[in-house]
Amino acid sequence: MMEYPLLLRTFLLRAAKFFPKKELVSVYPGETFRYTYADYFKRTCQLAHALGSLGIKRGDRVASFALNNHRHMELYFGVSCMGSVLHTVNPRLPLHHMAYIINHAEDKVLFIDEDLLFLIEGIKDQLKTVKHFVILSQSGKMPETSLSPVYLYDEWISGFPEDYDFPADLDEWSPAFICYTSATTGDPKGVVYTHRGLVLHSYAVAVTLGGSEDACILHIVPMFHANAWGGPFIGVMLGCKQVFPGRDVLNMESTCKMIAEEKATFTAGVPTIWMMLYDYLEKGGWHDFSSLKAIYSGGAPCPRYLMEGLNEKYNFPVVQAYGMTETTPLALAALPKSYMADWPMDKIYDVRSSAGLLATGLEMKIVNDKGEEVKADGKEWGEILLRGPWIAKEYYKDPERSKEYFEGGWLHTGDVGTINEEGYVNLVDRTKDLVKSGGEWISSVDLENAIMAHPKVLEAAVIGIPHPKWQERPMACVVPVQGETVTEDELKEFLKDKVKASWWIPDKFAIMNEIPKTSVGKFSKKDLREMYASGKIK
Amino acid sequence: MMEYPLLLRTFLLRAAKFFPKKELVSVYPGETFRYTYADYFKRTCQLAHALGSLGIKRGDRVASFALNNHRHMELYFGVSCMGSVLHTVNPRLPLHHMAYIINHAEDKVLFIDEDLLFLIEGIKDQLKTVKHFVILSQSGKMPETSLSPVYLYDEWISGFPEDYDFPADLDEWSPAFICYTSATTGDPKGVVYTHRGLVLHSYAVAVTLGGSEDACILHIVPMFHANAWGGPFIGVMLGCKQVFPGRDVLNMESTCKMIAEEKATFTAGVPTIWMMLYDYLEKGGWHDFSSLKAIYSGGAPCPRYLMEGLNEKYNFPVVQAYGMTETTPLALAALPKSYMADWPMDKIYDVRSSAGLLATGLEMKIVNDKGEEVKADGKEWGEILLRGPWIAKEYYKDPERSKEYFEGGWLHTGDVGTINEEGYVNLVDRTKDLVKSGGEWISSVDLENAIMAHPKVLEAAVIGIPHPKWQERPMACVVPVQGETVTEDELKEFLKDKVKASWWIPDKFAIMNEIPKTSVGKFSKKDLREMYASGKIK
Repeated sequence: MMEYPLLLRTFLLRAAKFFPKKELVSVYPGETFRYTYADYFKRTCQLAHALGSLGIKRGDRVASFALNNHRHMELYFGVSCMGSVLHTVNPRLPLHHMAYIINHAEDKVLFIDEDLLFLIEGIKDQLKTVKHFVILSQSGKMPETSLSPVYLYDEWISGFPEDYDFPADLDEWSPAFICYTSATTGDPKGVVYTHRGLVLHSYAVAVTLGGSEDACILHIVPMFHANAWGGPFIGVMLGCKQVFPGRDVLNMESTCKMIAEEKATFTAGVPTIWMMLYDYLEKGGWHDFSSLKAIYSGGAPCPRYLMEGLNEKYNFPVVQAYGMTETTPLALAALPKSYMADWPMDKIYDVRSSAGLLATGLEMKIVNDKGEEVKADGKEWGEILLRGPWIAKEYYKDPERSKEYFEGGWLHTGDVGTINEEGYVNLVDRTKDLVKSGGEWISSVDLENAIMAHPKVLEAAVIGIPHPKWQERPMACVVPVQGETVTEDELKEFLKDKVKASWWIPDKFAIMNEIPKTSVGKFSKKDLREMYASGKIK
Repeated sequence: MMEYPLLLRTFLLRAAKFFPKKELVSVYPGETFRYTYADYFKRTCQLAHALGSLGIKRGDRVASFALNNHRHMELYFGVSCMGSVLHTVNPRLPLHHMAYIINHAEDKVLFIDEDLLFLIEGIKDQLKTVKHFVILSQSGKMPETSLSPVYLYDEWISGFPEDYDFPADLDEWSPAFICYTSATTGDPKGVVYTHRGLVLHSYAVAVTLGGSEDACILHIVPMFHANAWGGPFIGVMLGCKQVFPGRDVLNMESTCKMIAEEKATFTAGVPTIWMMLYDYLEKGGWHDFSSLKAIYSGGAPCPRYLMEGLNEKYNFPVVQAYGMTETTPLALAALPKSYMADWPMDKIYDVRSSAGLLATGLEMKIVNDKGEEVKADGKEWGEILLRGPWIAKEYYKDPERSKEYFEGGWLHTGDVGTINEEGYVNLVDRTKDLVKSGGEWISSVDLENAIMAHPKVLEAAVIGIPHPKWQERPMACVVPVQGETVTEDELKEFLKDKVKASWWIPDKFAIMNEIPKTSVGKFSKKDLREMYASGKIK
């Protein structure tokens, strides 16, 4: 077979040549912008020339600081297909982390959405490698800014030729994208995606989840999250219509309107979004989901009531998938097998609310403390290890943490799970959140769910605290429902018949007003542990 | 991203681990054999051990001489996943070509269906490298044979362990399969398929044509044809039910029964099969196609009346695809685009009866004599050139012909075609069958179709014959319908308003009883040219 490299270029050229009339739609406040793959290709070519004029070469990093819109999509293929590397910066990171990752990636050019400009103004003096700033603006006016040198994207690219010879001789192992994970401890960790990895991930996602040219993909996942979960690449690979919702993505009325008007068939997002949607629908919000074929939920487990409610009441077909920045991200998908078609609904939802079945092309093992694979009985716990052609092999310029997480050629996900006899994985906890008590393990997640089932409890987070005899014992941090009080004794009594063993019941309960959260809205157990260590909670 | 090789092993292990209950069905005369992927995997492991016991190592070639059945399917993955190379020998080749390709590939072991044993008995003395013979038998009895040493497959593998450590460290560029094309001139040409090529082809076919775990694939394409067009690999990749029809494949009553009883969703085959099917249906043959989603037709153009008839009258959804042994084989697929949904049926059939649109992952150009790309106007002709990760880079141990067909890093398909503004290719002729007259080109295929439209003509083949002034001029070899006579003048008159220009009308018409055919049933223009040169036809 030919030594033909797997490059994003092949997808781009095919879309431009064979689907020039298909549409890309970008929604801005008060304006819906539409253009075709033919136009998209021309501007992508102009962008590549424009970057070349700044001296950007193969391997150079270029950053985007942008929401989901058509200019960001031009960066996706323009930067990577010319051989440079697109660093998608998460504008929700703490400011010092933003500066850190831009410096760590050594980004030379920074593309900034006009709406997000104020964030960059705040850190510009900390940026050591950025030589040029480019404003992505739909208004067409240069905003007031102290950045320099600064260009207005449309104006800047407009003078360049509308055709570009994207290199066919690029090595498929060349980096195309880089994305940083928001680490719970220490600096963010960078994951580099090669052309090969992204091409294979695109095929695998389309095969695993289903995809064809007649799909219309609505991009709810922010394009600064792990490759927007693959959607933009699959869209180009297949010549699909794609819709970029811009700032309006958190407005459920607007999202429902986009689904109906553009006849979206697929979208993806985190459960938080689907909770907002469910709330909107339960309040009688207008919707028309008749075009939808599947909605992929990932990033965190989708609560079963939410999945069932959306699916049964509103015919909003949620499919759970599992992955992480290190896995490009698809690793598992919770699709029932064909022979389960006549299973009772309850068992089907057991399958659909699991983390899923391994995507084709990867290898997985779930191993216990001794490194032995756990039994496929749905009960034995172990850490999920993954390997395959779209799994990261290391963290960028971080040999120490790379050694820890990629030992033995497998990604150690830090997620603890079970696998049942049908091969579906269920998550139990994060390895570092498990409570190690007397040589046994207690799942903080299971305990939290049990406590949160109490009608007076709003939130509960469980951490392990040091214990002289048992090594660790669980402690529960509990926020009561507004206007209610709840006592330790009440909770201990409540838990008696709800935990796996009596020694699972926490020794301590801290009743709090609020549980500290991370930048992505999860319970910050790191903060809770520090609060306990410093005596702030007891 | 990890340096994880693209290997068929990954597909095999996933099917065994996650779809152990899914079924493989193998039809024998009077018996339908069923087993699961779990059983399939065990026997595949035993086979790998058994081959190891004969000293078969990585890179060694092993040949199959078999129809579509479950043992052949065990060879598909057992041989390739242990690192050896499966050579699928076409039992329809002339005997001297069979001996040639087995010697050329240096096959060490030959697996033979009991039904085909007599063919090998006839050439056994010519086989220089085969050290062992293994009989694939459903009867369980060793047939009478002069081959030696010879083993009965089931008995032979039965003593070996049911688990095998298929190597994960195999290079993805390692050969996995080899298949020879039946060349119209000279010796057959070998095409080597790498693990990488087959894995990528599997993804691309599933993405292009649609595929999912709930599919049931009926293997009508012989497993000795180019990787049975990818079906067996896609089936394992996705954990699909697969049905192997064995000898009964040409019995349309039996084929229709299999489709209905096994609820086949996909199958593929050459137009000859679909003609037989259409004939069976037109005679009122029983059928139930309600499970079918798509039928892929390839190997030769599917006549439009046949496609329309099967689809419109019998809801038998024929999709035309284009490829060749050198392309693994999928290169183009004639699927309409989503925005064509409201086109009139006639225009839709123009699309569906074309050679198709380029599969995602490949590159194509259609070039004229000067090497320039033709206009996408559906009119300009050129040779179809392909490149990509599942396109052959050479013919096995044949540097001279490799140089000719793979010049400049592109496969020169030898097919002449047009491309229209929507990107669909239509075939015009084979390059070597075009008639070069006065610096212009005449399509022999177009002329043949025009002549065969005459009610008194059964068959017509057009060749170019040397001409002192015009270089070449067309000559038509015509077989009248039984009991009819047809004259040169009659045909010339008939063609007047049916050809592109008056100089297309052949100078000579040879009225014959029969046109010589190749081993695969096509007109043998090589024989016709020789007959003309030697004066046998004038």
